[in-house]
Amino acid sequence: MIVSKSRQQIATPSMLLAQNIRISRILKDTWQVDLIMIVSCTVAYMIREHLIANNYVIPAIIPTLLGTAIAFFIGFNNNQAYDRWWEARRIWGSLVNDSRSYARSLLNYVEGDQTTVKRMIYRHIAFLYALKTNLRGGTNDCNVRYLNDEDRSSIKGATNLHNAILNLQSADLQMLSKNGHIDGFRFIEINAMLVRFSDSMGMAERIKNTVFPTTYSYMTKVFIWLFVVTFTLVISESAGVVSIFLGWLIGFVFVSTQINGMNLVNPFVNNSASIPLNQITRGIEINLLEMMGAEDIPEPVKPINDEYVL
Amino acid sequence: MIVSKSRQQIATPSMLLAQNIRISRILKDTWQVDLIMIVSCTVAYMIREHLIANNYVIPAIIPTLLGTAIAFFIGFNNNQAYDRWWEARRIWGSLVNDSRSYARSLLNYVEGDQTTVKRMIYRHIAFLYALKTNLRGGTNDCNVRYLNDEDRSSIKGATNLHNAILNLQSADLQMLSKNGHIDGFRFIEINAMLVRFSDSMGMAERIKNTVFPTTYSYMTKVFIWLFVVTFTLVISESAGVVSIFLGWLIGFVFVSTQINGMNLVNPFVNNSASIPLNQITRGIEINLLEMMGAEDIPEPVKPINDEYVL
Amino acid sequence: MIVSKSRQQIATPSMLLAQNIRISRILKDTWQVDLIMIVSCTVAYMIREHLIANNYVIPAIIPTLLGTAIAFFIGFNNNQAYDRWWEARRIWGSLVNDSRSYARSLLNYVEGDQTTVKRMIYRHIAFLYALKTNLRGGTNDCNVRYLNDEDRSSIKGATNLHNAILNLQSADLQMLSKNGHIDGFRFIEINAMLVRFSDSMGMAERIKNTVFPTTYSYMTKVFIWLFVVTFTLVISESAGVVSIFLGWLIGFVFVSTQINGMNLVNPFVNNSASIPLNQITRGIEINLLEMMGAEDIPEPVKPINDEYVL
Amino acid sequence: MIVSKSRQQIATPSMLLAQNIRISRILKDTWQVDLIMIVSCTVAYMIREHLIANNYVIPAIIPTLLGTAIAFFIGFNNNQAYDRWWEARRIWGSLVNDSRSYARSLLNYVEGDQTTVKRMIYRHIAFLYALKTNLRGGTNDCNVRYLNDEDRSSIKGATNLHNAILNLQSADLQMLSKNGHIDGFRFIEINAMLVRFSDSMGMAERIKNTVFPTTYSYMTKVFIWLFVVTFTLVISESAGVVSIFLGWLIGFVFVSTQINGMNLVNPFVNNSASIPLNQITRGIEINLLEMMGAEDIPEPVKPINDEYVL
Amino acid sequence: MIVSKSRQQIATPSMLLAQNIRISRILKDTWQVDLIMIVSCTVAYMIREHLIANNYVIPAIIPTLLGTAIAFFIGFNNNQAYDRWWEARRIWGSLVNDSRSYARSLLNYVEGDQTTVKRMIYRHIAFLYALKTNLRGGTNDCNVRYLNDEDRSSIKGATNLHNAILNLQSADLQMLSKNGHIDGFRFIEINAMLVRFSDSMGMAERIKNTVFPTTYSYMTKVFIWLFVVTFTLVISESAGVVSIFLGWLIGFVFVSTQINGMNLVNPFVNNSASIPLNQITRGIEINLLEMMGAEDIPEPVKPINDEYVL
Repeated sequence: MIVSKSRQQIATPSMLLAQNIRISRILKDTWQVDLIMIVSCTVAYMIREHLIANNYVIPAIIPTLLGTAIAFFIGFNNNQAYDRWWEARRIWGSLVNDSRSYARSLLNYVEGDQTTVKRMIYRHIAFLYALKTNLRGGTNDCNVRYLNDEDRSSIKGATNLHNAILNLQSADLQMLSKNGHIDGFRFIEINAMLVRFSDSMGMAERIKNTVFPTTYSYMTKVFIWLFVVTFTLVISESAGVVSIFLGWLIGFVFVSTQINGMNLVNPFVNNSASIPLNQITRGIEINLLEMMGAEDIPEPVKPINDEYVL
Repeated sequence: MIVSKSRQQIATPSMLLAQNIRISRILKDTWQVDLIMIVSCTVAYMIREHLIANNYVIPAIIPTLLGTAIAFFIGFNNNQAYDRWWEARRIWGSLVNDSRSYARSLLNYVEGDQTTVKRMIYRHIAFLYALKTNLRGGTNDCNVRYLNDEDRSSIKGATNLHNAILNLQSADLQMLSKNGHIDGFRFIEINAMLVRFSDSMGMAERIKNTVFPTTYSYMTKVFIWLFVVTFTLVISESAGVVSIFLGWLIGFVFVSTQINGMNLVNPFVNNSASIPLNQITRGIEINLLEMMGAEDIPEPVKPINDEYVL
Repeated sequence: MIVSKSRQQIATPSMLLAQNIRISRILKDTWQVDLIMIVSCTVAYMIREHLIANNYVIPAIIPTLLGTAIAFFIGFNNNQAYDRWWEARRIWGSLVNDSRSYARSLLNYVEGDQTTVKRMIYRHIAFLYALKTNLRGGTNDCNVRYLNDEDRSSIKGATNLHNAILNLQSADLQMLSKNGHIDGFRFIEINAMLVRFSDSMGMAERIKNTVFPTTYSYMTKVFIWLFVVTFTLVISESAGVVSIFLGWLIGFVFVSTQINGMNLVNPFVNNSASIPLNQITRGIEINLLEMMGAEDIPEPVKPINDEYVL
Repeated sequence: MIVSKSRQQIATPSMLLAQNIRISRILKDTWQVDLIMIVSCTVAYMIREHLIANNYVIPAIIPTLLGTAIAFFIGFNNNQAYDRWWEARRIWGSLVNDSRSYARSLLNYVEGDQTTVKRMIYRHIAFLYALKTNLRGGTNDCNVRYLNDEDRSSIKGATNLHNAILNLQSADLQMLSKNGHIDGFRFIEINAMLVRFSDSMGMAERIKNTVFPTTYSYMTKVFIWLFVVTFTLVISESAGVVSIFLGWLIGFVFVSTQINGMNLVNPFVNNSASIPLNQITRGIEINLLEMMGAEDIPEPVKPINDEYVL
Repeated sequence: MIVSKSRQQIATPSMLLAQNIRISRILKDTWQVDLIMIVSCTVAYMIREHLIANNYVIPAIIPTLLGTAIAFFIGFNNNQAYDRWWEARRIWGSLVNDSRSYARSLLNYVEGDQTTVKRMIYRHIAFLYALKTNLRGGTNDCNVRYLNDEDRSSIKGATNLHNAILNLQSADLQMLSKNGHIDGFRFIEINAMLVRFSDSMGMAERIKNTVFPTTYSYMTKVFIWLFVVTFTLVISESAGVVSIFLGWLIGFVFVSTQINGMNLVNPFVNNSASIPLNQITRGIEINLLEMMGAEDIPEPVKPINDEYVL
């Protein structure tokens, strides 16, 4: 009934920054649903006007009860969707924190062999870009700069690129330890970071791959439609033809809130509520490069028209 | 009153992927409840029409109050059910992450004795299949490939197969340590993974074995039935025979939401909201085999008709 | 007003398994409250009929508002009660997981001195039984089998039996370490389990000893009573003597939900929502004995009449 | 409008145990608010009777909407307040658990120098009393018994007494380590407890020092007042002078729930919902003294009149 | 429609302490929104009076349904906002706890080289001030006292000042370890604190940089406006010109609650619900200086007029 596919194609792939959204944008996002509601309301109005007329009163208790129930269900959906979104944000926040601790440990606690240290930090940036690309989709060109030829050929063919990169880090860490550049205590500290990267990457994949129970969003849409139709039937008695507009208006309140929530449910998908992975990854990149004293540090990701951040 | 047993027999054993579910499916899932509601509504309508008639008005406040109260109770049930479902998903997410870290540690941090390393990783895949089978039911044939004869005879007769397998891992880990293939620090890191496997397996068992307080779901069903009957009694005054349909319709909104929630409450049981253990376990299997450079890697579990994932 | 003491004496001491509870049971659990409500409703009906009559209308807004408010308060109580119950379940889940890891570590990581290992695992089963008895009440006879004479005389007189047992474990662990049966790394791993046992036991005691704020449950009962009375006053105008029945019916919906919640609030107390400590403790016992290769392993705790698990 | 200061002076400083609270107590706790409500209701009734009369109907939708909204806001306040209270209880639960693990480790893992061990455990009891006094207020006399002269002069003048005591523990721990009474592994285990004490003490201070956003409780009071006045205006039409009583009654339901919540918001303040710090601290004291085999062990804190625990 | 920018300029940059806020302050905070509502209500009243008149009744069900729905949405917004605020407070609470453990470890566990210890503790105070300034904005002059010239020139030009400071701490820690002032165990304990500082700083940055989904607050404002207008249209029928006042009054209840929540959403921004970073940072400063036995300890941050804490 309420189609959400094509809406996502229109939406821009990024976190919305603007405080005041034009109503026109929201209508653009929901025009298909709006159309369905207006048609339904019109039909309901016609049926009442021509078929039911004044034969009997449709009880107002029906839309009232449905309205309360739907408010609960939308609230439920929005809570779970927000939790998924915020967990996704926290996971990438952990990646930021652990990346800094990882680089700090490598730079300060490894004695000698700065080549391996540098390679391991560069490779970590590649790991982040590979993970980002896996979550967001798109071609994986950015991390070419941060992997040497050996690494690139070694991970070629891996179905899970970022996991393969993590594997290389462990091999290098073991080498550092065997060659006496770090002792057991420092080995443990740096390995702990690799385990945390593994956790974060798996948690992000979990959110990406777990479908929010489809019955919830589907049933909520059906109930909203039911509500809009009965509501129009009830108020058309007193409000006449305006009831088509009022039916849509009240329906719009519920539908747009439901759609807001469903936009958060897949936080790595490209829409206006998406986690700004480009910005976060670039932020870590800049941090790590600065810590290494690198030159030629890229610019932060800028908001587009002060409206979006990719 | 509202029987949920036979419904589960019909349901397919897997996570639902389809965005739009046919109404026919939902009706098939709830036909028994629907029947009970329609009969109840008809009886209520008859009683009113023939016994009560216009003697006095049944106060509309009764279904209104019941409706609000039920919305709360269903909300409560759904919240707790979703939490159980999501916790189950997180537990298996942890198994994914820890399995990768476990294999990464074994492959990179053990010096020499790659036979034991290989055996420990293979045995871990068997552990996952044993745990999956324990949670899901079914015959346990898949892990035969990953256990050698010695292991298989050693765990024979254990009531808790996966715990017995974990025990074997500790014995091998101790052997690696005693023979000098790992030092104390690496011993701690790998043992930490075994402890985490023990935690995850126990948490999954806890969700499986703990019955959601039965009074909640039972009372909610009773209250919904009470609501539907009083609702029909009230609206039949103005809506006539249509009130049977309307009574069922409103009841359906509440009943289907309640059933949705109760489908999540046992996330390892075979129904449309089930955690896709087959897919997750196979995913880990592929990851670990790839990390070991194994050939003959199995295919990922594919969705069936783009609708389900086992 | 609404007495809950004697109700708990009737209730059976165990987790309810049955999917469909006979209404008769629920009425048996709530008969005192039901009586109070029916008397109150009757008095309210009489007052209206004979004193107020048709002098003026009692505003229906009063029970409507009270009903909404009470639904919130009951929701609050139930949420907190469920959280306490689920936390109690998770604590005993942790005890399961940590007990297995503890036994696995002792059996595999200690070189020589299997007598101490055996004693420490047996003593741990005694620890669990002591904790269970402390939480549930009852005589403490079951763990006699798992403590030797020396231990028993050593902990005699301790006010906190399970804490005293834990103390003995640490002494043995230190002895194992001093005699060279474990190194520092293994010492840390096993001691971590003792710390986790200490945490779990303290958390269970916390839930047992912390009274849920009494004002909440008391006020909710008062408000429900107030609601039932005003509701009866309002509907008796149109519903006549049936309003006594209707008043009780609506009151029953709220009261039984409130009582459901309050049954969860003390999850170690003996009632139908109680955590099945007997079953869990026996489960760990069987696991550990099997891991030790013991013979004469006890049977799991069976549900009684397929209805309850102790 | 609704003054809460003087109420707290009346309230007893302890956790309420009694299951059934006399209504008289609640009225005593809320008499000022009750007075304000009764006066407001009377004024509202008079205004309606003499100024508005039958000129026009005040719409019943106003108190209905306000009532629903207020129920939400009170629910919000109560949820956050309960979370603060329960977190406070969990923090002191952690102190119980960690104190036992701390004493267990010191008593069993330190070889020789039992004087220092004894001093460190005694000093920990002093730490708990100092923290309790800091959270609760009152003179700090109880811990004199547990600090020697040297310690007492060393921490004199410290603004944060319990932090200063913790500092002394670290110094002693380092001394134990330097003198070879513990190795590095045991040093880490005991130091971990000191870090956890530091965490718990800081978390308790955080709850004590963070004011619950004042606008929430203030606005809720204003809205309740607004609700009571409009409610009285509406029902006085049909209920006459009784509406003053009914206005207060409904207001009382909301006000007493709000006050219940606000009693939990500062769980270390002296009122009937306070965490029983005296009882908990004494409990730890008894545990530790028993573990040390001390004589002259104090009695547990007894409830006062079976009603309160300090 | 409802502008929130200029409101924030008026608000004072600190945590509100006063229990009773003057209504005048709240009106000052919301005057723009109030104006918009009053104008809207007036227009709605005029339209009804002159255009619609008595032609037909506007259904009261519309504002009733909108009111319930909005109460849900505001509740959702407030819950998420409060969670952000409380998480921010917990993060800074962790910084307090970890700072004390960090200083305690350095002071007691480092043998010799007290110059480095002192420098590392001073530098940590500088780290806190740098983080505070980054979160709050403002010139960074306070930490000049706590960084030596070498450090200051070393971190010059870093885009993330506090991360650069943390880097220096790791370098010094490594130096302490290499020169034999701490062993591996103590190295791990102190490094754990640096990792926790890194986590806390990243978590605070995450809250600061993540925009709360803008559609939520925007849509809620639009819905409140819609509600106020339809509400005024409905009640103007019976309440006449007073309906403008009543429309604003009910709107004010919703708007002020929504604004309360939105004040919490960015807890480091300068407004009346802001986390008192100045006070917390100064508190840590005093703690650490006292632990070092420093003289010339600054005063705690005092509330301004007993109303605010910066």
